[in-house]
Amino acid sequence: MTATSRFLISPGAKVNLRKRSTDDDGGLSKQEAEAALAKACARLFELQALMYAERRHALLVVLQAMDTGGKDSTIRAIFSGMNPQGCRVTSFKAPHELERMHDFLWRVHQAVPPLGDIGIFNRSHYEDVLIVRVRKLVPEKRWKARYDHINAFEEMLHDEGVTIRKFFLHISKDYQRERLQRRLDDPEKHWKFNPDDLKERARWDDYQEAYEEALSRCSTKHAPWYVIPAENRPFRNLLVARALVEALEALDMKHPKPTFDPADLRIE
Amino acid sequence: MTATSRFLISPGAKVNLRKRSTDDDGGLSKQEAEAALAKACARLFELQALMYAERRHALLVVLQAMDTGGKDSTIRAIFSGMNPQGCRVTSFKAPHELERMHDFLWRVHQAVPPLGDIGIFNRSHYEDVLIVRVRKLVPEKRWKARYDHINAFEEMLHDEGVTIRKFFLHISKDYQRERLQRRLDDPEKHWKFNPDDLKERARWDDYQEAYEEALSRCSTKHAPWYVIPAENRPFRNLLVARALVEALEALDMKHPKPTFDPADLRIE
Repeated sequence: MTATSRFLISPGAKVNLRKRSTDDDGGLSKQEAEAALAKACARLFELQALMYAERRHALLVVLQAMDTGGKDSTIRAIFSGMNPQGCRVTSFKAPHELERMHDFLWRVHQAVPPLGDIGIFNRSHYEDVLIVRVRKLVPEKRWKARYDHINAFEEMLHDEGVTIRKFFLHISKDYQRERLQRRLDDPEKHWKFNPDDLKERARWDDYQEAYEEALSRCSTKHAPWYVIPAENRPFRNLLVARALVEALEALDMKHPKPTFDPADLRIE
Repeated sequence: MTATSRFLISPGAKVNLRKRSTDDDGGLSKQEAEAALAKACARLFELQALMYAERRHALLVVLQAMDTGGKDSTIRAIFSGMNPQGCRVTSFKAPHELERMHDFLWRVHQAVPPLGDIGIFNRSHYEDVLIVRVRKLVPEKRWKARYDHINAFEEMLHDEGVTIRKFFLHISKDYQRERLQRRLDDPEKHWKFNPDDLKERARWDDYQEAYEEALSRCSTKHAPWYVIPAENRPFRNLLVARALVEALEALDMKHPKPTFDPADLRIE
């Protein structure tokens, strides 16, 4: 059993992404990883049902990655087996007019799952210290204040019942080239290719630096970051699923007691 | 000119409501106060127009009071003259099912005004450390953590462009008796009378204590509280209006420069 804790960023640790594996497979074959994933997903399904019944906790899953890092396919692999009632994915694209007229957490807060539910963020408020920083979309003073604001926001959510787990799907620049090339070579994947993605790729080092600061400053006890080696996809999915199972198991949830005594009732 | 600063709570100051006037009239006659209010409102109207044009700032006004403290009539007196486009009042009642399934700031965050607008909160997230505390609606540990969460939330809003001013409309328990009696005596005001209000009145001291802690802990540089003597209504309105004018004047707003050169254009 591979410990997920190896991939957890301890609060206060300084993250150096170059020193972190992008292609670890945990020593598992593809078949082994997929079998273990199926088991983890089955357990996650049970825990979701329990959380839904109990309505005392919510689970918020944050996924971030460089382009081609595999956010979409991770979501598909893990959550397509969940009960869709009580499980909602929110993709955060470039903010529209009304969103830009509000603080950066405004649209994010609205999408936080209610008690009982799982919410998955495909990109998130972290873009406001990533692309916003790299592309200088707001003054430096403004984005610099956001790390603390993010921590305060996530701590508030935690205190109010939301369990938060955050995953950076870590790939190398070479791996990205290969994946982008594959999209170019396959006419059926052209819709996924956006020439602007190459502009972001050209700023790879700036993005890695921005990620390192976000991961270092915002991995907290109540809302930890995991850096997941993401090039071996079955192992990547397994690690994310296991970390979620562990998070929900730690909550010690129980089926709520009925408000009536079943022994008193007779269904005629 | 009466300084509003006398009624401002300095950050870190310990508030003792018994020592704060509820019936100060600033030495002004009713006519004088009303004339000064008209002037302040006219200036506020200009500043609102400027803020709306510039779209770099928003103004959030928080009003809290014991029952009969005059929140509704303050809102009417000051904001009925504003441009309703760009000015929205949100009344926070007992949270409904979906709201209770989210953190206490969730519904409040959605109502924060976008840049350019004025938002008025008739009651607010402070109820979550007032009635929630007095009536023990959540465990003590949970509401105790909320003072810090409120400060962090308001600081984030401030950093993202929202100017916040908070007003506690302060009345005495005797004044409340008088006002409630008036509602009972006047059949046209019976709709405003709710027998449950008497239960809250019975906990007057608990509420004053809860207010004192909220005012002491959450009056910050970026989001100050004012304790407004609220029994003299024209003076109460004047103080609130003036504090808002001062807040907006401090922003040094300017009409945005046109993105074209008007001299280049000829309208045929």
